[in-house]
Amino acid sequence: MGAGFGRMVHVMAEVLIAGGAGFIGANLARRLVAAGHSVTVLDNFWSGRRANMAGMDVRLIEGDVREPIAGRYDWVFNLACPASPPRYQRDPVFTLTTSIDGMRQVLALARRCGARVVHASTSEIYGDPLMHPQTETYWGHVNPLGPRSCYDEGKRVAETLAMEARRAWGVDVRVARIFNTYGPFMDPADGRVVSNFIMQALHGEALTLYGEGRQTRGFQFVDDLLAGFMAYVAKPRAEVDAFFAAKGMALPVLNLGNPEEITVRELADEVLRLVPSGGGIVSRPLPKDDPHRRRPDIAWARDCLGWEPRVHLREGLSRTVAYFREGPAAGYMNA
Amino acid sequence: MGAGFGRMVHVMAEVLIAGGAGFIGANLARRLVAAGHSVTVLDNFWSGRRANMAGMDVRLIEGDVREPIAGRYDWVFNLACPASPPRYQRDPVFTLTTSIDGMRQVLALARRCGARVVHASTSEIYGDPLMHPQTETYWGHVNPLGPRSCYDEGKRVAETLAMEARRAWGVDVRVARIFNTYGPFMDPADGRVVSNFIMQALHGEALTLYGEGRQTRGFQFVDDLLAGFMAYVAKPRAEVDAFFAAKGMALPVLNLGNPEEITVRELADEVLRLVPSGGGIVSRPLPKDDPHRRRPDIAWARDCLGWEPRVHLREGLSRTVAYFREGPAAGYMNA
Repeated sequence: MGAGFGRMVHVMAEVLIAGGAGFIGANLARRLVAAGHSVTVLDNFWSGRRANMAGMDVRLIEGDVREPIAGRYDWVFNLACPASPPRYQRDPVFTLTTSIDGMRQVLALARRCGARVVHASTSEIYGDPLMHPQTETYWGHVNPLGPRSCYDEGKRVAETLAMEARRAWGVDVRVARIFNTYGPFMDPADGRVVSNFIMQALHGEALTLYGEGRQTRGFQFVDDLLAGFMAYVAKPRAEVDAFFAAKGMALPVLNLGNPEEITVRELADEVLRLVPSGGGIVSRPLPKDDPHRRRPDIAWARDCLGWEPRVHLREGLSRTVAYFREGPAAGYMNA
Repeated sequence: MGAGFGRMVHVMAEVLIAGGAGFIGANLARRLVAAGHSVTVLDNFWSGRRANMAGMDVRLIEGDVREPIAGRYDWVFNLACPASPPRYQRDPVFTLTTSIDGMRQVLALARRCGARVVHASTSEIYGDPLMHPQTETYWGHVNPLGPRSCYDEGKRVAETLAMEARRAWGVDVRVARIFNTYGPFMDPADGRVVSNFIMQALHGEALTLYGEGRQTRGFQFVDDLLAGFMAYVAKPRAEVDAFFAAKGMALPVLNLGNPEEITVRELADEVLRLVPSGGGIVSRPLPKDDPHRRRPDIAWARDCLGWEPRVHLREGLSRTVAYFREGPAAGYMNA
């Protein structure tokens, strides 16, 4: 846990989580409630799931982040946007407008009531990077006219909107660029590798490896991300502003991800160790649109928040498997 | 003039020009009227100028492209966005929303009435390019969080919106990425090098060179751009679609610019040849945010439209000087 977190527990904040019924939002809501905060979830259940809300002691607003948001909050987390490629490609115009208009409505709310905003951006804004690892100053290498553009370009312009709202209206908005994250409350059907492997193993099916699984990836356990969020949102504005002014940045932006890389083959082996499956592993050819390799430089998050990932893959996977076995219906609580 | 232009003159089209009171729009409106089309100009006069409308035989709608657009049109040219850095940086949120919501309203109009759209994008979407010259397949190198981002990122996501509207609703939208252009109806105060030099010379002042003027630039005379526009808008959809499908592009995109480069020093000398000024030339240090060098690859525009720039710098400058001497009040008509 970051240095800022210790201060945070002494205040009770009124918090809005836009997209709070999604994977990260459902974890964050539980963490905030456990820390004694008053939490409101705004979700339209486009990709968020009602099952994720089970047993949550929060207010629920069923609505669209693209519409004006009522109320007064101390903190707003903007997590509202489908994030898995098959999901966000199902309705690219929805994805684009959720990124753009959602950001605008969150910024308008913050401008009106003085809320502090933590905006969930993404490593996807770096596209297919030509620099490794990626620092926050890297401009990225993004295709404006490809199958991923509705997500990538929408998320990029949301950051630009945040910067301009900060400049024009003094909105206290802080951007987290989230890298590959896994954990409880993931949607088993959203098509990403960790949930795919666990579901295949639990069903006794073979784990599908593409291109022999030699590609490397970093996997951040969701509790590590939450520790970063909590330290980020709790840090006083003057300190955040001073940190980023010294870096020459017009907007606070931090990478939050796990820089430790393993091969997809190693991930499959770890899953099979936890859930022995008769199916073993099958290999398929690498698809053309295989996700690009990205690895965060987390020096700034370390310096600014005293944060770094702590949860080892085996522990994170074991807790994720437990969730997938028992499911939200079993009243699973993320400890 | 492109091959397509010959076909176009036989039909009378109902045309909307969003941003029709700006530099390029005022030229385009005159060209379309001269070709027998029925022209409506939509402008909010934020950077467009009332003086540019003088003597124009068009319908004028004073309004904002970010609001729903009534009416039925055959062709819509979307030129609505401030384009010179000091202008677009004056209100970055306005610039961003004009790019984004303007594009959305134009696409919604086209979806409703079946109009063909030519959207004015920009070489700025290539940012500070790492590839020279720039082809339409180049992804660009753009800072999402800099002083130019409100323009660059807004214009990039407008292209993404256009691509998705074409995919989802079949909107016939064609993107032109416009490079550095000059000519009559430029705003003398908009801060770009051609108008700066001409105004300085006409006032008998010294021409201001930055960094000794050794940087190179391409300058496209506006009539060349218009010829590209006319060929582009007149080309049958099936031919455009076939051309870009063969290129693997999800959206028709053409660079329109002059690939011939001269130094800024040579430009100054040309201006002084036309308008001898006692002031001569003064040198100043190169500012930090000097515009990046960009040069269009126009092979696609040549192949698709039979188009290339024809007007020599001396001729273009001489016609621009004539406009700046006489002004729109003198009833200048772009021949």
